[in-house]
Amino acid sequence: MRVEVVAVGTELLLGQIADTNGQWLGEQLAASGIDSHFHQVVGDNHERIVQAFEIALSRSDAVIVCGGLGPTQDDITRDAIAEVAQRPLELQQDILERIEKMFSARGRSMSANNRLQAMVPRGATVIEQTRGTAPGLICPVGDKVIYAVPGVPYEMTDMFERAILSDLRGRMAHTQHAVIRSRVLRTWGTSESALAEAVGPRFEAHEHSETGLTVAFLASGIEGIKVRLTAKAVDEAAASALLDQEEIEVRKLISAAFGDIIFGVDDQTMEFAIASLLAQRSLTMAVAESVTGGLIASRLVNVSGASQWFRGGVVSYASDVKYDVLGIDEGPVVSEQAARQMATGVATLLKADVGLSVTGVAGPDPQDEQPVGTVFVGVAIKGREAFASSLHLPGDRPRIRQYSAISALDALRRALQS
Amino acid sequence: MRVEVVAVGTELLLGQIADTNGQWLGEQLAASGIDSHFHQVVGDNHERIVQAFEIALSRSDAVIVCGGLGPTQDDITRDAIAEVAQRPLELQQDILERIEKMFSARGRSMSANNRLQAMVPRGATVIEQTRGTAPGLICPVGDKVIYAVPGVPYEMTDMFERAILSDLRGRMAHTQHAVIRSRVLRTWGTSESALAEAVGPRFEAHEHSETGLTVAFLASGIEGIKVRLTAKAVDEAAASALLDQEEIEVRKLISAAFGDIIFGVDDQTMEFAIASLLAQRSLTMAVAESVTGGLIASRLVNVSGASQWFRGGVVSYASDVKYDVLGIDEGPVVSEQAARQMATGVATLLKADVGLSVTGVAGPDPQDEQPVGTVFVGVAIKGREAFASSLHLPGDRPRIRQYSAISALDALRRALQS
Repeated sequence: MRVEVVAVGTELLLGQIADTNGQWLGEQLAASGIDSHFHQVVGDNHERIVQAFEIALSRSDAVIVCGGLGPTQDDITRDAIAEVAQRPLELQQDILERIEKMFSARGRSMSANNRLQAMVPRGATVIEQTRGTAPGLICPVGDKVIYAVPGVPYEMTDMFERAILSDLRGRMAHTQHAVIRSRVLRTWGTSESALAEAVGPRFEAHEHSETGLTVAFLASGIEGIKVRLTAKAVDEAAASALLDQEEIEVRKLISAAFGDIIFGVDDQTMEFAIASLLAQRSLTMAVAESVTGGLIASRLVNVSGASQWFRGGVVSYASDVKYDVLGIDEGPVVSEQAARQMATGVATLLKADVGLSVTGVAGPDPQDEQPVGTVFVGVAIKGREAFASSLHLPGDRPRIRQYSAISALDALRRALQS
Repeated sequence: MRVEVVAVGTELLLGQIADTNGQWLGEQLAASGIDSHFHQVVGDNHERIVQAFEIALSRSDAVIVCGGLGPTQDDITRDAIAEVAQRPLELQQDILERIEKMFSARGRSMSANNRLQAMVPRGATVIEQTRGTAPGLICPVGDKVIYAVPGVPYEMTDMFERAILSDLRGRMAHTQHAVIRSRVLRTWGTSESALAEAVGPRFEAHEHSETGLTVAFLASGIEGIKVRLTAKAVDEAAASALLDQEEIEVRKLISAAFGDIIFGVDDQTMEFAIASLLAQRSLTMAVAESVTGGLIASRLVNVSGASQWFRGGVVSYASDVKYDVLGIDEGPVVSEQAARQMATGVATLLKADVGLSVTGVAGPDPQDEQPVGTVFVGVAIKGREAFASSLHLPGDRPRIRQYSAISALDALRRALQS
């Protein structure tokens, strides 16, 4: 069963809004074990929408089209479907009455334009509108089908869950049923190519036999490299079992090659990892930032419940703020000693158990004889000796800042775990 | 000139990430007066990528393909381009050396997989990689062209701006005798529909006669509403003159309806506006953040030359940090008084001329009897009485934080201007 998503709307092509419907539908289809090999985006143009439908129907079993069902002149999805399916559009009286009722319930009178929304290709089934004025359509085209839903996400998701998914499952029942599940291992500290090399044996195992598993890599810039495991199986439990087993194998290979670089699974961010470690140990923390200018603190407060363990931070951008407020020794501020003293200083000032600090050179010019990209991270944990480590980061100013922030959090993660 | 965007990556079809590249490119192309009638998304499958290229080349003059240039086994865009262009892939020694150097600069050795990234279709031009290891490609196919860029947005946008846009403009020069130029007025503080109403007269003027101008609105979420003026004229100078005149008219209407809500033009951010005002007045500033947790500081340090006027900040997340470090009176910390004292406190502590503060409730629970979304902004400017104002913001935690940050900066902008 192959389903193709076609998003209709000139505003999508102009980049005025993002095609979040395509993403959401892709996720839902994958979760139901339905293949989706292509997505298309097309503007509000009759000829081009027809062309998109024809291409989609030539290579997929079903098409989900989002958008172009509104009441204005540029809402022409209904006409394009009628043309491709070679069925006339007919006014459906009960839909018209329903739309009129929706307007009068809001104390408004229906505009004549809205009559358009009650036009249905002959032989198509209507998906009743519960959230907006436009009904959805299920329109057969030979032994294939076009599903039409409004572009408003809130209306689209409702119709997909209420009508389209069950219709698709009915069609799939003839063929085989499978579910697809994914799991993502999030890493920080190595390159995509090195990871691919280390995990190579798993890659080959799946390529040369029908394991139902695939392994892929996803470079996520400042969030590191994600390793995605995907399993196709007869049911949820079987897919989970495959993923559990594969996760063990992949973790073994990654750990042997790079040590402890996996910081989270699926949606777990680096700051989530920090939050968990601190909560487990009943520790509070504070952060002193120079080059990152508040980025680390702003990531930490996004973790739900941060007030339990996050005390606050000092953005010590000017050197004398480092001397006067954090109490570090006067001298070069981009150094291992400065980082160590900043971590200790901020923990003392804000009465935290753990202090984390970053000082470095984001450019464009070198500072304290250190080249651009040099960053020192300091970690001070109550009852242990404070330490600092140095990094050499690539990129421009914003990039060096972002890399510094996640690198510093990763340094703290490793220190808390050891 | 018609350009089609093809995004490559199974992770896009599975909905694991959104196709933000398509949106960004759509916006850039539109701003340059280049038509884009279709976008496609296709997975990491050789046959299907080739199919997508063939469809795109049959109806567009140029194709921009994003993704699939990485160093792993599932990065096959290069091969697909070579097939469609019917050109063999050749190892380009200088690119290989460049990649090796990038690795050694970070103290790592290049993995054998990265050799793939130095493979170039014969006759293609390379777009030098400055931010990642993958170079981009400009590969002619008959009198059409495929541009290939990495899927990482940070690398893609750089290559588009540095190499692709100028190449496209060169190709357009042969066929078109008009230039299209845009100018964006950035506003904060009103709604898209209210702006559209206020600017309505201009809208109508352009709709009913051939002025060569259009006005459009672009809701940009946490960055406010952008008003985009676009002029089509015979040359650069004529387009600029049209834009200058239109900007005066539009500013007049906006100012009459809403006062001083335009904070920048084109790429000028809110923090850039602050930086300019401070520099003109030779003032330094410091920021005290609670609910925004460092967001304001991290925006400010992104302005080039921030060290001239930015002293630093305190992220006073825990209440007692506000009492002890910033010296505010004990009591409710989400209040006008607290905001005022935080602004004065941080200016004193960090020896700055100007103090800016934010305290508020991001939820999920109310605090100090204030409902979620209540935010107080404090402003303390040397030689003037400190003041605070309150805001009621919509949205979830991250949204309230982001809105608070730009609202606070806007409050400071207005105070510095008055």
